[in-house]
Amino acid sequence: MRVNDHLATMPAGYLFAEIAKRVRDHEAAHPGSPLIRMGIGDVTLPLAGAVAKALAEAAMDMTTPEGFHGYGPEGGYRFLKELILRHDYAARGVHLEEDELFITDGAKTDTAALQELFAPDALIAVTDPVYPVYVDANAMAGRLGAYQDGRWQRLVTLPVTHENGFMPQLPRHRVDALYLCLPNNPTGTVLTRTQLQAIVDWAREKGTLLIFDAAYKAFIQDPDIPQSIYELEGAREVAIECCSFSKTAGFTGVRCAWTVVPRQLMGRMAKGGDASLNAMWKRRLGSKFNGVSYPVQRAAAAVYSPEGQGQIRQALAYYQQNAALLLKALSDTGCEPVGGVHAPYVWMKTPGGMSGWAFFDYLLREAQVVGTPGEGFGQGGAGCFRLTAFSTLEHTREAAARLRAAINKL
Amino acid sequence: MRVNDHLATMPAGYLFAEIAKRVRDHEAAHPGSPLIRMGIGDVTLPLAGAVAKALAEAAMDMTTPEGFHGYGPEGGYRFLKELILRHDYAARGVHLEEDELFITDGAKTDTAALQELFAPDALIAVTDPVYPVYVDANAMAGRLGAYQDGRWQRLVTLPVTHENGFMPQLPRHRVDALYLCLPNNPTGTVLTRTQLQAIVDWAREKGTLLIFDAAYKAFIQDPDIPQSIYELEGAREVAIECCSFSKTAGFTGVRCAWTVVPRQLMGRMAKGGDASLNAMWKRRLGSKFNGVSYPVQRAAAAVYSPEGQGQIRQALAYYQQNAALLLKALSDTGCEPVGGVHAPYVWMKTPGGMSGWAFFDYLLREAQVVGTPGEGFGQGGAGCFRLTAFSTLEHTREAAARLRAAINKL
Repeated sequence: MRVNDHLATMPAGYLFAEIAKRVRDHEAAHPGSPLIRMGIGDVTLPLAGAVAKALAEAAMDMTTPEGFHGYGPEGGYRFLKELILRHDYAARGVHLEEDELFITDGAKTDTAALQELFAPDALIAVTDPVYPVYVDANAMAGRLGAYQDGRWQRLVTLPVTHENGFMPQLPRHRVDALYLCLPNNPTGTVLTRTQLQAIVDWAREKGTLLIFDAAYKAFIQDPDIPQSIYELEGAREVAIECCSFSKTAGFTGVRCAWTVVPRQLMGRMAKGGDASLNAMWKRRLGSKFNGVSYPVQRAAAAVYSPEGQGQIRQALAYYQQNAALLLKALSDTGCEPVGGVHAPYVWMKTPGGMSGWAFFDYLLREAQVVGTPGEGFGQGGAGCFRLTAFSTLEHTREAAARLRAAINKL
Repeated sequence: MRVNDHLATMPAGYLFAEIAKRVRDHEAAHPGSPLIRMGIGDVTLPLAGAVAKALAEAAMDMTTPEGFHGYGPEGGYRFLKELILRHDYAARGVHLEEDELFITDGAKTDTAALQELFAPDALIAVTDPVYPVYVDANAMAGRLGAYQDGRWQRLVTLPVTHENGFMPQLPRHRVDALYLCLPNNPTGTVLTRTQLQAIVDWAREKGTLLIFDAAYKAFIQDPDIPQSIYELEGAREVAIECCSFSKTAGFTGVRCAWTVVPRQLMGRMAKGGDASLNAMWKRRLGSKFNGVSYPVQRAAAAVYSPEGQGQIRQALAYYQQNAALLLKALSDTGCEPVGGVHAPYVWMKTPGGMSGWAFFDYLLREAQVVGTPGEGFGQGGAGCFRLTAFSTLEHTREAAARLRAAINKL
C-alpha cells in the first residue's frame, strides 16, 4: 500500500504528547514530586450541575420508546441550534440561519477538517505562534510542502509579538486562507474591534477566507471586544467561525462544539465558477460524520439555562481570578506577561533569553511547575512561554510564588 | 479562496438525504399516511438500561472533583480498551495490544478518515454495491478522478451479486486498498472463513491494504463465521478493522466506535522506505481529534457488563426475528431475498426488473413502505433493493404483508 508521505513524515510528535513524555520522565526520576500542571489547556473544575443533570436525564430518557434518539438530524438538533443562535449571536446583533450552523464534537476536529474545503495548492497563512492543529492538518494534506529547518516551505507565517502588540502585519500578496484564534491561544491576547475590522476588510479586498477560532470567547471581559467575527461588517462574506463548549462550560471531556459557515461565503473552483462553502461543508459532514451524541447535545442546551449560566459564570470567574494572580506575580519579573485578562492563558518572555524548552526543563526541575514552551507553537513563540489558568486557586497561588522565586534565582 | 473542486462537484446528495427528501414530498402530498420506515439503517429499540445507567452515573460523577474528567488519553480510556480487547478479541483467540486499538465517535467517521493514510494517487477498490461513505471520502480527496456516466474514473469496483454468491472476484492487478464490509451493508450477506482467508491471502500477495468494516458483526449467528478479520492467518499484516457500538448496542445516537491498526501493518512511502500505519493513524488522531465523551466511554463499557450483555442480546434477537419475517414473506415472490440472517439487512431483486428508485417510489405509493434503492449503493446495486430489520415487530409484520401484496399486484 502506498501511503501519504506528508502524514508519514510529519515532524516530531504533537506538542502535548512531548510535554507529557518529559513530565513522565521527570516523575519517574523524582517520584512523589509535587507537580503543578499549567501546560495543557484542560479545564479542572467539575462539570456544572445543571449540565450533568441534563446529560443524565437524556441518558435515562433513551431507555424509553418515546425518549429514544438514534441518528440525529444532520448538523445537530434544532433545540440546541436555536439556543446558540439566540444567545451567542442574536443577543449580539448577529442574525444567522439554522442551516448556517453545524453542531460537531469539537473545535479541534472542525479546525482540522475545514482544510478539506481548500484547493490542494491553496496558500495558507497563520499567525505565529499558533495553535498547532491548523498547521498540522494542512501539512498532513500536503498543502505546506516540505518541512525544512523548522519551517514549512509553503506556509505564510505572520508573527504576533510583544513588539507588534500581537496584531499581525497583513501580507500584501493574496493568501487563500488565514487562521485566526481570538482570544488567542497561546498568547491570551485579543484584538480590538477596529483591528479586527481591518483584517476583515483586508480579507474582502484580497479574497481570503478567514477561519475564526473563537473557542475562548467566553473569557472576554470587555463588552466592546467582538465575541463573534460576524459582529464585523462584511465578515459573512469571508469568514467561517468555530466555537466550543470546552472552555466555556468545561466540556473538554464531554465534547460539543459548533461551526458557522454563512451562506454568502463563496469560493472559486479551478475549473471556473463559484462554489458555496456552506453546501460543501454540509456535504462533507453528511458523508463523513454522524453527529454528536444526543445526551451531549442535551447537556450543551442546559448550558443556556439560567441555572447553567450561573454555574458557568462562576467557573469562568474562578479561572479569571487565577489568570490575574499569575499576571500579578510575573508583572515585575521582566518577563512582560500578556494575556490572562480575556483569556485563560498568560504568555511571557523567558528570563534571560532562554529557549522555551530550556525554561520548561528549568521550571520542571526548580519549581515543579509544568508550562508550555513557546517553540511548541511555532518559531514565532521562540523565547516565550505559556501558562494556563486552569488549575485550582491553591495550586495557582503556589505556582505563582514558585515561578517568581525560580525566575528571581536566575 | 480557491476550493477543493472534488468536494465542490460531488454528484447528487448523500443517499439518505435523497430518501428523506422523497419521503417528505410524499408526506406533504399525503398527510397522515401510515409510513413504515425500513430505509435508513437506524436502530429503534430503547437504549439498554445498564448502558443508560452507566452514562447517567458518569455524567453525575463529572460534578465532583474526583469524578471529573477533561481531555481523555489519546486513543481512549484503558477501562474501555481492556474490555474490548478481552471480549471482542481475546475471547476469539485474537491478541492485540492496547496501542493497536483506537476509540472514536463512529465507524462512519473512521472509515471516511482512513483514506488520509493513503497516497494521493492510491488505487482504491470497493465491492459493488457498497456503503457510500468509502467511495465519497476517497472522491472528496480527489483520489477517484472524475465522475462520468455514473462511474468514478479511478475506482475499481468488484461486483457482488446473486450470481457470484456475493463473493467478489479479486483483481489480478494490484490495488492499494480494498474496503470490505462484513456482514455486508447493503446486501446482508457474509463470507465463510475460507472465502475470507482467500481475500487475506490475495491482499498479502499483492500488497493491498484491507479496510475491514465489521459494524454489523454482532448479528452473526454462526460461530464459524469470523467476527474479526484478525481471526484469519496473516491478517495483521494487511488489515485495518473498524467496529462500532451503533448496531451492536443501539449507539447510533450515543456515538462510540473503535478502529484497530496493528503494529505490523506497513505501507510504502513514495520517497522510499516503509511507514507504520499504526504510527500514522495515531499521529492523525492526536492532531485532529480530541477523543470520545467520557460518559459515553463509560456507557460503552457497560455494554460488556452481564446485565448489559443480556439486554443487548435481547435487542439483537428482536431485530433478527424481524429480519427472518421479512425473508420469509419475500421468499416465494421471485425476488430472491438474501441476507437477513447474520445481518439486519435483507437484499432483494426488484420485481420485473424495475429500477431500484422506481421500486422505491412504487412501494412508497402502494405500500407506504420506505426501503433503499440498490442504485444508492452503486451501479452493482441496480435492480436491487434493501430493507432493514430495525423496525418494531408490529411494523415489520405489517410491512411484510404489504410488501408481498404490492409485489404480487405487479
